[in-house]
Amino acid sequence: MSENVPAPEWITSEWLNSEPLSITSLKGNVIVAGAFQMLCPGCVSELVPQLRKAHALFGKAPVKVIGLHTVFEHHEAMTPVSLKAFLHENRITFPVGVDTPRHPHNPLPETMQLYGMQGTPTMLLIDKGGNLRRMSFGHVDDMQLGAEVVSLLSEG
Amino acid sequence: MSENVPAPEWITSEWLNSEPLSITSLKGNVIVAGAFQMLCPGCVSELVPQLRKAHALFGKAPVKVIGLHTVFEHHEAMTPVSLKAFLHENRITFPVGVDTPRHPHNPLPETMQLYGMQGTPTMLLIDKGGNLRRMSFGHVDDMQLGAEVVSLLSEG
Amino acid sequence: MSENVPAPEWITSEWLNSEPLSITSLKGNVIVAGAFQMLCPGCVSELVPQLRKAHALFGKAPVKVIGLHTVFEHHEAMTPVSLKAFLHENRITFPVGVDTPRHPHNPLPETMQLYGMQGTPTMLLIDKGGNLRRMSFGHVDDMQLGAEVVSLLSEG
Amino acid sequence: MSENVPAPEWITSEWLNSEPLSITSLKGNVIVAGAFQMLCPGCVSELVPQLRKAHALFGKAPVKVIGLHTVFEHHEAMTPVSLKAFLHENRITFPVGVDTPRHPHNPLPETMQLYGMQGTPTMLLIDKGGNLRRMSFGHVDDMQLGAEVVSLLSEG
Repeated sequence: MSENVPAPEWITSEWLNSEPLSITSLKGNVIVAGAFQMLCPGCVSELVPQLRKAHALFGKAPVKVIGLHTVFEHHEAMTPVSLKAFLHENRITFPVGVDTPRHPHNPLPETMQLYGMQGTPTMLLIDKGGNLRRMSFGHVDDMQLGAEVVSLLSEG
Repeated sequence: MSENVPAPEWITSEWLNSEPLSITSLKGNVIVAGAFQMLCPGCVSELVPQLRKAHALFGKAPVKVIGLHTVFEHHEAMTPVSLKAFLHENRITFPVGVDTPRHPHNPLPETMQLYGMQGTPTMLLIDKGGNLRRMSFGHVDDMQLGAEVVSLLSEG
Repeated sequence: MSENVPAPEWITSEWLNSEPLSITSLKGNVIVAGAFQMLCPGCVSELVPQLRKAHALFGKAPVKVIGLHTVFEHHEAMTPVSLKAFLHENRITFPVGVDTPRHPHNPLPETMQLYGMQGTPTMLLIDKGGNLRRMSFGHVDDMQLGAEVVSLLSEG
Repeated sequence: MSENVPAPEWITSEWLNSEPLSITSLKGNVIVAGAFQMLCPGCVSELVPQLRKAHALFGKAPVKVIGLHTVFEHHEAMTPVSLKAFLHENRITFPVGVDTPRHPHNPLPETMQLYGMQGTPTMLLIDKGGNLRRMSFGHVDDMQLGAEVVSLLSEG
């Protein structure tokens, strides 16, 4: 993506494992943000382990690994109470923001709608200046993700 | 296990994908019953796909593949409402019985307590006569499971 | 496959890990015979581990797990000398017969030609009476293989 | 590893998929060199696919992905003739150098001995200036490898 597209500020109703975080407050960091639903099988089997690995690998660099819980279906089954148990069971210790729900008016939550995400999992990469450099639906290969994060890190 | 240990009747509060089922009513079938929790990572990654595969493979034989939702932690996160969404997302079409909860008095649900299960996933194999022939905590290899089911099927 | 198709006797030039074996001499056993080439990637990643697992699982039953090295390409790279190193490195302790080469006249070796195999890996299942009950090109699922072996075992 | 340890020039008897390559001639490139044996199961299942992926991912950057065939056992089974068939079957199109054998005097080939490698697979990362920055026995995680390659790429 172009280097000049500011990532829209995410809209969240709650944060787990962290104080509330904003894109603005994280400037200077590369942000790896994985949008997931706790009952989406591909998220559980691929995105969550990948975020956990990135969190461990880049823990000392100015890289912030974050989860966004973007629930757009089965809202009653994926409440923050359930999410807390999910984080515990899947040993997720990085910050997770809950995308603000808009239902019953609309199944899509605020951030998902704002970004035009197609579903879950979706991977967002945001550079140190707050620009959205990747948004992709589906799985990103581990080697490619590692390469892209360090490429963004090496930018001035 | 010995061939002469009747499997205790399971104690369930609700069934999904089916009318209520009992061990007694299933006599004449080999029963493959997987005890799981929807937020247990090993259950999601291994037991659920295995049960789905067994259900497809043995669909025409007198084999009954069943899930037992044996919640012993995070009860508020794994309610029947959440379980329904989980079944949908994981394309589970075989019957799933909800092990009757005993909390707040005790975290272990009734069937889990009755059988003395150590945790989830646990695999139960019950022969045509209603005897418990295998109860094992952890993953059972696919080849071994296929072999054991047909071995039980071939009994008189 | 029909129960009345006798498996043609395989034609081999050498056996590793065993005295020469014939289908006739193995009557009374269920035979699990995997046809492979040591440089075929799908054989290395899937068939060989599956045969090793079957050999361990059915070791005490009247089941004979066998490999057939059916080289139809790169003949000079997959000689018995190379095969011996391959068996060692992949911890293969079950008998492996070398399908008799016919080159330079024809790239297909004798047994492969006789059976009309399409390539490697190919799985053969032969019943206690010496009939060919399955011949399939590609991977057979572990659960299905376990089920079929025991089904053949339970025949009179 | 320190940034000031020049990688010893490898000693090769033959190259496949390429003219002979030397570390000196590749200065200016990051070198990803995987030392393998074609019959080493961990090399086949993990290192080779990883090198193939790195070759595809970094194809346009000044990154050179290379294989070194460092045979230290079963020499007669892993000759260049066999190696050529292996490269074909495993769709390896990147350059592969054959580490010069020293047997019958010594099972270890020249480069392996010179570097003090412990076995296969071994991953070498060499920076643009020709310094050895990583030498590790066993599997390197894909995300980490992607990150390290780009980190070396970003050096002045």
